[in-house]
Amino acid sequence: MINTGFPTEGPTLGEIGEEAVIHAIIEASPSAVNGDDAAVLHPPSPNSRMVVTTDMVVAGRHFRPDVTTPFKLGRKAVVQNFADIESMGARPLAALLSLSAPTSTPVAVVEEFARGIGTELDKYGTELVGGDVTAGENLVMSITAIGSLGGNRPPLTLTGARAGQIVVAHGRIGYSAAGLELLESGIDIPEVLEPLVLAYQAPELTPGSGLVARSAGATSMTDNSDGLLHDVGALARKSGVRIDLKSEAIAPDELLVQAGELLGVDPWKWVCEGGEDHTLIGTLQGEAPVGFRPIGTVHKPASETGSSSNAASVPVTIDGQPPVYTQGWESFA
Amino acid sequence: MINTGFPTEGPTLGEIGEEAVIHAIIEASPSAVNGDDAAVLHPPSPNSRMVVTTDMVVAGRHFRPDVTTPFKLGRKAVVQNFADIESMGARPLAALLSLSAPTSTPVAVVEEFARGIGTELDKYGTELVGGDVTAGENLVMSITAIGSLGGNRPPLTLTGARAGQIVVAHGRIGYSAAGLELLESGIDIPEVLEPLVLAYQAPELTPGSGLVARSAGATSMTDNSDGLLHDVGALARKSGVRIDLKSEAIAPDELLVQAGELLGVDPWKWVCEGGEDHTLIGTLQGEAPVGFRPIGTVHKPASETGSSSNAASVPVTIDGQPPVYTQGWESFA
Repeated sequence: MINTGFPTEGPTLGEIGEEAVIHAIIEASPSAVNGDDAAVLHPPSPNSRMVVTTDMVVAGRHFRPDVTTPFKLGRKAVVQNFADIESMGARPLAALLSLSAPTSTPVAVVEEFARGIGTELDKYGTELVGGDVTAGENLVMSITAIGSLGGNRPPLTLTGARAGQIVVAHGRIGYSAAGLELLESGIDIPEVLEPLVLAYQAPELTPGSGLVARSAGATSMTDNSDGLLHDVGALARKSGVRIDLKSEAIAPDELLVQAGELLGVDPWKWVCEGGEDHTLIGTLQGEAPVGFRPIGTVHKPASETGSSSNAASVPVTIDGQPPVYTQGWESFA
Repeated sequence: MINTGFPTEGPTLGEIGEEAVIHAIIEASPSAVNGDDAAVLHPPSPNSRMVVTTDMVVAGRHFRPDVTTPFKLGRKAVVQNFADIESMGARPLAALLSLSAPTSTPVAVVEEFARGIGTELDKYGTELVGGDVTAGENLVMSITAIGSLGGNRPPLTLTGARAGQIVVAHGRIGYSAAGLELLESGIDIPEVLEPLVLAYQAPELTPGSGLVARSAGATSMTDNSDGLLHDVGALARKSGVRIDLKSEAIAPDELLVQAGELLGVDPWKWVCEGGEDHTLIGTLQGEAPVGFRPIGTVHKPASETGSSSNAASVPVTIDGQPPVYTQGWESFA
């Protein structure tokens, strides 16, 4: 049974007021550090570097109340930020939440959202250490994640891929896009396809995956938030390399194929263009670290190989060929 | 000549697209650290603690295009966050920006806003190290500030005020509220009153003031963002003390009196209830640190003095009397 929908009953933000709203959030996602002008965090190890990122979630743009729940949305808002921290090979430490919502919003919406945030933060042993709440025309949430990069190895950057490395991935690819399309289709979704829906509503990230990859010698990493080819393309371009993905390693699995047949969609489209899986994708010399699988290889760019073929001039190929589906998420489309 | 208004011409966010919008922001407020999944920051000193805070700015709620400019709004968005960092006795290090705006927004609005952010960040030797941009129904900006707390002294908290200390302030009180009321009145604002308007549009904060107070032995600090009595009241309650302010030290000055006469408003209302001055207010034993002036004294709470008078039961008094104006900012009113 797939849960969707936002609470529509009960007292509203306008009725209970700012102080009570903040209290409700802190109850749902507690922290000993929260409650002052700013939160003070101790570095977990001497000389560790700070890693910071932020991501905004806008109602009607990033989600619709009829395809998710506030609880799952809260979990997802954390995952999409922590995936960016893990992508640097760092460890999430804490999060901040800015929330703007109409005064007519039921408090239960904010409570469930904060409970989702707290549940996900718990998996990492981290806390919601601060935030801001305000009225606004539309529900907008901005999460900032703070992480820590210990040790002497460099962070895993978008510029760190090198020819000769393998490309590795941790997690599903294409599930989230398929799940959203199932939800938006309005059809009665078969129980067997629920993993796709859950991947959209609240994608799973294994805490520590980025750390594991960094320890195993990875030099670059990102997550597929805007689409596999979009994000791997950014990695390739920023590193000045070409990346070739193996079709057999990223091919739609049984569930994606079944959903594709049901909706009349080529599931390769979800694999290549779908974002929001927040699957970590990195490059390294040697073998795939624990929890990762090889999905491709890194090559010199066309300009260095002297090749003038069409395939060599695009930053990402599949089995050496330019991919058919290359669109990604565009914020202002 | 007071500047107000937002650009209404030129290419829009929807026309130029996400990548170009991000490029415009980075051009206007550059950083070598920006551009990866997350930003990596080096602590400025060994074993320094991180200090983090966030604040959201919503169009129509926190500002109207007819009372400010995007450039000044960008400056103010930084100041209101950095004031929270300074309030801990810490040093601002970096900022992140999440921005949601209608696709029809002229790029010039975002560019000017980012230029304002960059200008203010420059005063602190800090940078915009990351962010997120997305379409939305309304213009919403969320800034997160990262700071550093070096040395062994504790941070300046809302719980640190102690009976026997003096209360000190750094900066104007009431100017911002008066400036907003002048702008909203629609009158032709006399040139002499421009400092009030500027205090609303882009309040000034002296970099390092919080550090100075912490070095001088301050134990508590906040800034008047939601109203003097509201914020000093929070400090008193959280510290379990009563604070008595001296009327002669906070009395409306010549400009506030003049604006009050012009608008038919008691300027004490701006002093007591006006927020957004982002004036640092702290407590310490001894004398006011450089740049600060004494404005009151800290006392034991009524429960400990055995007094049952009306004045002793309120957390903040003025010359020993309960204040007349006690309202503050309420986000969901």
